[in-house]
Amino acid sequence: MNWTKTPLTEGLNIRYPIIQAPMAGGVTTPELVAAVSNAGALGSLAAGYMEPENIRTAIAEIRSRTDKPFAVNLFIPQPPSPDPEPIARAHELLQPYRQELELPETDTPLDSLPNFKEQLAVILEEAVRALSFTFGVPQPEELEALRQRGIVALGAATNLLEAITLEESGVDVIIAQGFEAGGHRATFVSPPERSLVGTMALIPLLADHITIPIVAAGGIMDGRGIVAALALGAEGVQMGTAFLACPESGARPEHKEKLLNGTETDTILTRVFSGKPARGIGNRLTEELAARQHELPCYPIQHALTQDIVRAAGERGKPEFMPLWAGQGCSLSTAKPIEELFDAWIEQVNRLTGRP
Amino acid sequence: MNWTKTPLTEGLNIRYPIIQAPMAGGVTTPELVAAVSNAGALGSLAAGYMEPENIRTAIAEIRSRTDKPFAVNLFIPQPPSPDPEPIARAHELLQPYRQELELPETDTPLDSLPNFKEQLAVILEEAVRALSFTFGVPQPEELEALRQRGIVALGAATNLLEAITLEESGVDVIIAQGFEAGGHRATFVSPPERSLVGTMALIPLLADHITIPIVAAGGIMDGRGIVAALALGAEGVQMGTAFLACPESGARPEHKEKLLNGTETDTILTRVFSGKPARGIGNRLTEELAARQHELPCYPIQHALTQDIVRAAGERGKPEFMPLWAGQGCSLSTAKPIEELFDAWIEQVNRLTGRP
Repeated sequence: MNWTKTPLTEGLNIRYPIIQAPMAGGVTTPELVAAVSNAGALGSLAAGYMEPENIRTAIAEIRSRTDKPFAVNLFIPQPPSPDPEPIARAHELLQPYRQELELPETDTPLDSLPNFKEQLAVILEEAVRALSFTFGVPQPEELEALRQRGIVALGAATNLLEAITLEESGVDVIIAQGFEAGGHRATFVSPPERSLVGTMALIPLLADHITIPIVAAGGIMDGRGIVAALALGAEGVQMGTAFLACPESGARPEHKEKLLNGTETDTILTRVFSGKPARGIGNRLTEELAARQHELPCYPIQHALTQDIVRAAGERGKPEFMPLWAGQGCSLSTAKPIEELFDAWIEQVNRLTGRP
Repeated sequence: MNWTKTPLTEGLNIRYPIIQAPMAGGVTTPELVAAVSNAGALGSLAAGYMEPENIRTAIAEIRSRTDKPFAVNLFIPQPPSPDPEPIARAHELLQPYRQELELPETDTPLDSLPNFKEQLAVILEEAVRALSFTFGVPQPEELEALRQRGIVALGAATNLLEAITLEESGVDVIIAQGFEAGGHRATFVSPPERSLVGTMALIPLLADHITIPIVAAGGIMDGRGIVAALALGAEGVQMGTAFLACPESGARPEHKEKLLNGTETDTILTRVFSGKPARGIGNRLTEELAARQHELPCYPIQHALTQDIVRAAGERGKPEFMPLWAGQGCSLSTAKPIEELFDAWIEQVNRLTGRP
């Protein structure tokens, strides 16, 4: 098995077929992205929630730290559904937390997400190596524009139907997201709660039906997971939680601490923060609202409605109100710097595959 | 990686570290168990719901077909909680189905399960090679009796705490059951719905903390899954769904057909049939009762209350009322005979690990 010389590593011009997962909320600092790319893998800037000019600045900062390829991640936009009833319910359910945090009533506009076309324009102008996207498929003319600039397009799927949809649309690589993965479920065809397939079952199925490279995501924490994913039929892996507690990661100290002390049964799927299900370590907010989360508005409206609470929780160091995104592998996470992590993983992979 | 010469294969005296999962409901015919053992792996008779004398007969039938080692599986008993309210609710919710099937009111006694001590006595007398057990830990004197007769004890865990509990109790092997697995969740320490960890995340964690051999279960469907599980730190695998549609399997034809046509998103966790969550392909019964399943009695009472419905559904070929147990890998299942399956898997393993 020559895992470093494949269409994936050659297409992305990287040494190791390892992608650092885009993790929103300030985790993917230019320092983290550049350190991963400098280690021979593909760093990813999670730009889904970033304004276009901030994306441009972050790309410049990454480029000041590395001349290696990296990716930017965007969210495919979804029209907000401004049904007044769930919005009123969200205001009512979130009010006690606003009060406790002494926040005024939120005045975040419901269409608070950055403009996707403007975000994409920055990626195209900057001609980064790769664009990964979540929650759907770009328009044909958008994919064509990426192709013309030589930007590799990576799309996320949580089941076979989504993977086929992405391949047929012309993307270059499928990120196959297993049930174990931290953060948002990428599901865009089925309802997310009906598309919770473990990595062990998902990858070989996709490998049997998809011809473009598959990158496995979900539960992969070290060289053992990398070798397992390759055996299942993936050409590479995407790892997120494994990088979250690194010194280079921008995760809040309280988040890192929860992660380093978390157990494999501590993570839950919650739609409390954004309206879309996402995996993280449970806390007071997710527990208290668990029974009523189905009443909350869909993404992106619920995301807009919780922004002031999440910001205040971060500023004041209150993990009980933060999204503590983490995958089921969280108890294997360490606080080692990126370079040390890679040294250990590559050594494990070489040992397990009998290479020198 | 020498995957066939390990403490696990030597302790069980088998050629390949592959265990056929115990699958209740008549699936594990003597023909299936013997075919697996004859192929060099470990067949398992699912005896949890079998009366002691029937276990004895089945063991004799298996022995008439193979002189190779095999295992028997039992369920650790749990005291029924005869709370009248959920029982009345179950009667009410199941009544329409009894009516549709023209069944009389059920007269199954609520403590309908076979006597565990008597089941165990048969295993001890027959001195089969291995006893695997689910839903808990045997008593110390029971484990001692197994040890004295040279019977290998395999216990099922769904999280690290359960694995440590089993190792400390003195069992010989841990079956680590990932979220993807079909059939009953084996959880006995946490509530089952809080112990849904994917195989990819579960195995390396256990491997870091457990010294006895670990057997990975959940989502493993062929040689790719076997190599992946070994890379993650397991010494062997337990596969169930991969055998379900074989000609040797006693699964109902309707069950096999659903399995062969199932997709990776068709399985659900339901406690409708037994009171314990179990993974299978959803059908009319599980869908119609999904929203109210939390009101039903716990195992083993709910199991007793659905027995007449399950029996009638089987006899009359009605998959809409059968438990269609299946793991998330179901869309990789085939109807090939056991011998052909093994030939293909071993070839895959050797190819992936670079062996001749």
